[in-house]
Amino acid sequence: MAIQYEQLMGREDFAGFEDPEKFQKWVPKLDAYRQKLADGVEPYKVELPKPIDELVKDQFNAKDYIYDSGIFSARELEITDSKGAQILSEIASGNWTCVEVLKAFAKRAAVAHQLTNCLHEILIEDGLKRAQELDEYYAKNGKTIGPLHGLPVSVKEHYNFKGRVTHGGYVSLVEAVTEEHGVTNQVLENLGVVFYVRTAQPQCLMHLCGDNNYTGTTRNANNLSLSSGGSSSGEGALVTLGGSVFGIGSDIGGSIRSPSAMSGCVGLRPSNNRVSLAGCVSGFGGHDSILCVCGPMARSVDDLELMMKNYVNVGKPWNLDAVTIPLPWRDVAKPKPEDLTVAVIRDDGLVRVSPPIRRGLEYTVEKLRAAGVKIVEFDPPHTKLAYETINNMYTCDGNDYQREILGSTGERLAKLTKWYLNFGKGKKHYTSAENRVLNADRDFLRTEYTKYFVENKVDLILMPVYNSVAPHCEEIYNWSYTTLFNILDIPAVAFQTGLKQDPEIDVWTEEDQKYQYRSELEQMENEMYKPEEFKGAPIGLQLGAQRYHDEELVAAAKTIIDDILKVDLFKK
Amino acid sequence: MAIQYEQLMGREDFAGFEDPEKFQKWVPKLDAYRQKLADGVEPYKVELPKPIDELVKDQFNAKDYIYDSGIFSARELEITDSKGAQILSEIASGNWTCVEVLKAFAKRAAVAHQLTNCLHEILIEDGLKRAQELDEYYAKNGKTIGPLHGLPVSVKEHYNFKGRVTHGGYVSLVEAVTEEHGVTNQVLENLGVVFYVRTAQPQCLMHLCGDNNYTGTTRNANNLSLSSGGSSSGEGALVTLGGSVFGIGSDIGGSIRSPSAMSGCVGLRPSNNRVSLAGCVSGFGGHDSILCVCGPMARSVDDLELMMKNYVNVGKPWNLDAVTIPLPWRDVAKPKPEDLTVAVIRDDGLVRVSPPIRRGLEYTVEKLRAAGVKIVEFDPPHTKLAYETINNMYTCDGNDYQREILGSTGERLAKLTKWYLNFGKGKKHYTSAENRVLNADRDFLRTEYTKYFVENKVDLILMPVYNSVAPHCEEIYNWSYTTLFNILDIPAVAFQTGLKQDPEIDVWTEEDQKYQYRSELEQMENEMYKPEEFKGAPIGLQLGAQRYHDEELVAAAKTIIDDILKVDLFKK
Repeated sequence: MAIQYEQLMGREDFAGFEDPEKFQKWVPKLDAYRQKLADGVEPYKVELPKPIDELVKDQFNAKDYIYDSGIFSARELEITDSKGAQILSEIASGNWTCVEVLKAFAKRAAVAHQLTNCLHEILIEDGLKRAQELDEYYAKNGKTIGPLHGLPVSVKEHYNFKGRVTHGGYVSLVEAVTEEHGVTNQVLENLGVVFYVRTAQPQCLMHLCGDNNYTGTTRNANNLSLSSGGSSSGEGALVTLGGSVFGIGSDIGGSIRSPSAMSGCVGLRPSNNRVSLAGCVSGFGGHDSILCVCGPMARSVDDLELMMKNYVNVGKPWNLDAVTIPLPWRDVAKPKPEDLTVAVIRDDGLVRVSPPIRRGLEYTVEKLRAAGVKIVEFDPPHTKLAYETINNMYTCDGNDYQREILGSTGERLAKLTKWYLNFGKGKKHYTSAENRVLNADRDFLRTEYTKYFVENKVDLILMPVYNSVAPHCEEIYNWSYTTLFNILDIPAVAFQTGLKQDPEIDVWTEEDQKYQYRSELEQMENEMYKPEEFKGAPIGLQLGAQRYHDEELVAAAKTIIDDILKVDLFKK
Repeated sequence: MAIQYEQLMGREDFAGFEDPEKFQKWVPKLDAYRQKLADGVEPYKVELPKPIDELVKDQFNAKDYIYDSGIFSARELEITDSKGAQILSEIASGNWTCVEVLKAFAKRAAVAHQLTNCLHEILIEDGLKRAQELDEYYAKNGKTIGPLHGLPVSVKEHYNFKGRVTHGGYVSLVEAVTEEHGVTNQVLENLGVVFYVRTAQPQCLMHLCGDNNYTGTTRNANNLSLSSGGSSSGEGALVTLGGSVFGIGSDIGGSIRSPSAMSGCVGLRPSNNRVSLAGCVSGFGGHDSILCVCGPMARSVDDLELMMKNYVNVGKPWNLDAVTIPLPWRDVAKPKPEDLTVAVIRDDGLVRVSPPIRRGLEYTVEKLRAAGVKIVEFDPPHTKLAYETINNMYTCDGNDYQREILGSTGERLAKLTKWYLNFGKGKKHYTSAENRVLNADRDFLRTEYTKYFVENKVDLILMPVYNSVAPHCEEIYNWSYTTLFNILDIPAVAFQTGLKQDPEIDVWTEEDQKYQYRSELEQMENEMYKPEEFKGAPIGLQLGAQRYHDEELVAAAKTIIDDILKVDLFKK
């Protein structure tokens, strides 16, 4: 009999959380929120081929539908399937207007939402106004207002947005209007981008899925029966479906990389404090132990770099948020394959990977080796300490923040919220001194891995993002493959191998059946993989580099993804 | 009747600390330690003009004595009064040998020690061996081994030193041999420096003075009756007396800037995580809230820059310690006076400055203004919050670390150790969540001050390092002027105005007598200043810049100190 996640729950008993009676008074507010979202979609309403529930049952591929349905004109597809640099160049040379570009992306975003439920808020009217102002500025001055003039950019909802409610997935914040943009939204706006949608995230922001009491969960662009990953769930689906040039996610445990790898796009988790998180809803304010980082999600590495380079070098976020470090974004040339050494982690010692991930790793390693990349096998040290330490860090306030903000409305706890609240020591309140021991372990681990990079002249680590492909909604329990890079503060690019799960090929072998599980968590995770249920799920992986070597990472990612794997996400 | 510091003590009751009986077994070990130090000085023993106690009573100027005594040959003075770049150039061109250079500095250091008690450990024999090896390398290869080949550098004792005891001022560590260099010592050695002395620090490393149970306290180079400042007390005296090219201090509350300003040299407190503190004795391991930083102390800004530039750009400490950030040291041109805007803090709202500091500020402001620098007055916001927050951070483990490491031997608590243990909430154990509130306040403050720099186009803040000149030993209670830059992580250069305290000029005026004290701390501090007791004490101040603008700070410090104030510390 399969292990149920309830069996693995720890000491948190959820007293002080759910209260259906108390919750009643919040229901009308949530209904109003949802109605506004529905109203925003209305002008872009399309007739889906079947009711959404049936599409889910069919494991429907929404990305194919974007191209096959005929909903978009050739011109709309041309615009929305262009890289950011191309769009900026067309606008700057007067060939395209910001309004036309925004309209194309807004339509694609609205359709993406109908398929995947990826949005929390639609701001298309404001976006069109802004686009028009930018066009007028350009017409009048003959130049753009900034390096990202007119670029449609999506942002995760939990960053404060000027004059709008910012709730971060918490019902108690359903009326919490934030007066100013969070710093990163402000920097992006200063650079010239156009905002038009804010994307979905899970309750408490700590699922590798997307369930929340505002809008439910986000579906996978390549298979509507699966999750888009999380916690930047909306960005994963939206970006994969071409609904924005790049989106801004955030990652404290995998929340950029999980939805990127699982949904079918690419995402960068930068090193700490290069992108500001000042001004956002978060349970981790002042928690230095483990920092959340913002970063871009897109369909190309070029677009990740476009965001980072302009954001850092032109946006200078450190002038608005003193926590951010003025580390310029360096120009690093794309390396030749033969100049790269890649260490491969095939297993993290905690949870065995499922057949499609194994195939993805083998495929990628073979492609890299054939191209001349030096491959070394890497058995990562101290992964248990790393995983336990970060889990203890997450909940070391004894979940007081979550109990306060969730308990105040008595809202339903999502399954994965309960799972998260059991991380670490659950209700235990760490003292400051106990917290320091966790930090010292973290710094020990960081230096151990740094020495590995330096002493072995390793440029990159190649490894899974998760032990399997995109899960069913609210069925993902192991974070060990993503959190390793969070506690190490290793910058990482989640990417597509170009392969998709195939129920015929990606099966457990006879050899696999004899496997002795190392833990109940591993058993539960492995038992969830049933080949026939994950049809067409993208097979994504991640590349990591030495701390603060983000530029070397991005340059090498171009060599690997564009030149060696030749993955093109701007088409069916 | 004057306020006594005992009246201002808080909730710490010192239970679990001193135990004279338990301490007995440590006495022979301390005696042996002191004997080894005395043996190291022996070959360099000089006849002082009077017994040291009488020189103390005379407020003797040891720096003048270096030049007036005839102890040093012209050649020795030429070598030891050269800037680092000059020494490196003479060695690299074969004019001077590393051995000759080391011998000259070793002699000057040993004499400095006899006057000021600035050393914990003498390693001159090892240093000579290393210098000889470097000379042999040069003779054989015709080149140097690194950019700091042969430079005599002193280091504060609490950094781990390969094969030596590292005690950090704690008696319990009197036999604690550290097997490897701390990262910063290792990086410096890799660059080619020669170590030959380790300098004194106070018990628990948290006095702005130097008293410890190993060697007592360090005296001021310009007035032996005063303290050299602290906690890098030994470096302050040694560097001022020309006993090393530069020394490495550390600063979590003013410990580089206090001894630099008070002793009579210059010192840089870099921004966080540019110089590694990995591998040292400290009560703050894993305490992310407030970071100690290492930095150089020297007789010129050029030497501060020499250290930082080579340490960062060639030493690349981030490859040995993942906590350190790979932020390259940028070349920044020395600005013209008229391109500088300097904000002056004359009073921090907490403790009024004494007459010599007031005079130093007025003098400096007038000189800057006359040279064309734009001066703006700055009334710093939130200084009470800043001071309370950092004091709470220091002791938020309820002093458990100090109780364990000091209580285990029952060693005598120095007066200022007791004072420090009462900082913040004394015995209170902060929870991790309470600690986060302190961190959030810190980040708020950092952003407020950053906005001040950016919005007002201010390049530098000019302010006191302390509300007075060098104090009597163990009589310094207010840290508010230094800790402001620690909590803000503002990089700062402590420097000499060129003025010295003059008992005739630097008196409280009639206006001063009518002053209404804002706190008992202020009253106690102000009452300690009696003009006749501080004869010739250096009048030092500090310059701060926006976080991580260390390079702009150092460049502007050259304009101000070298060109405008024309301070030359390489002579009497």
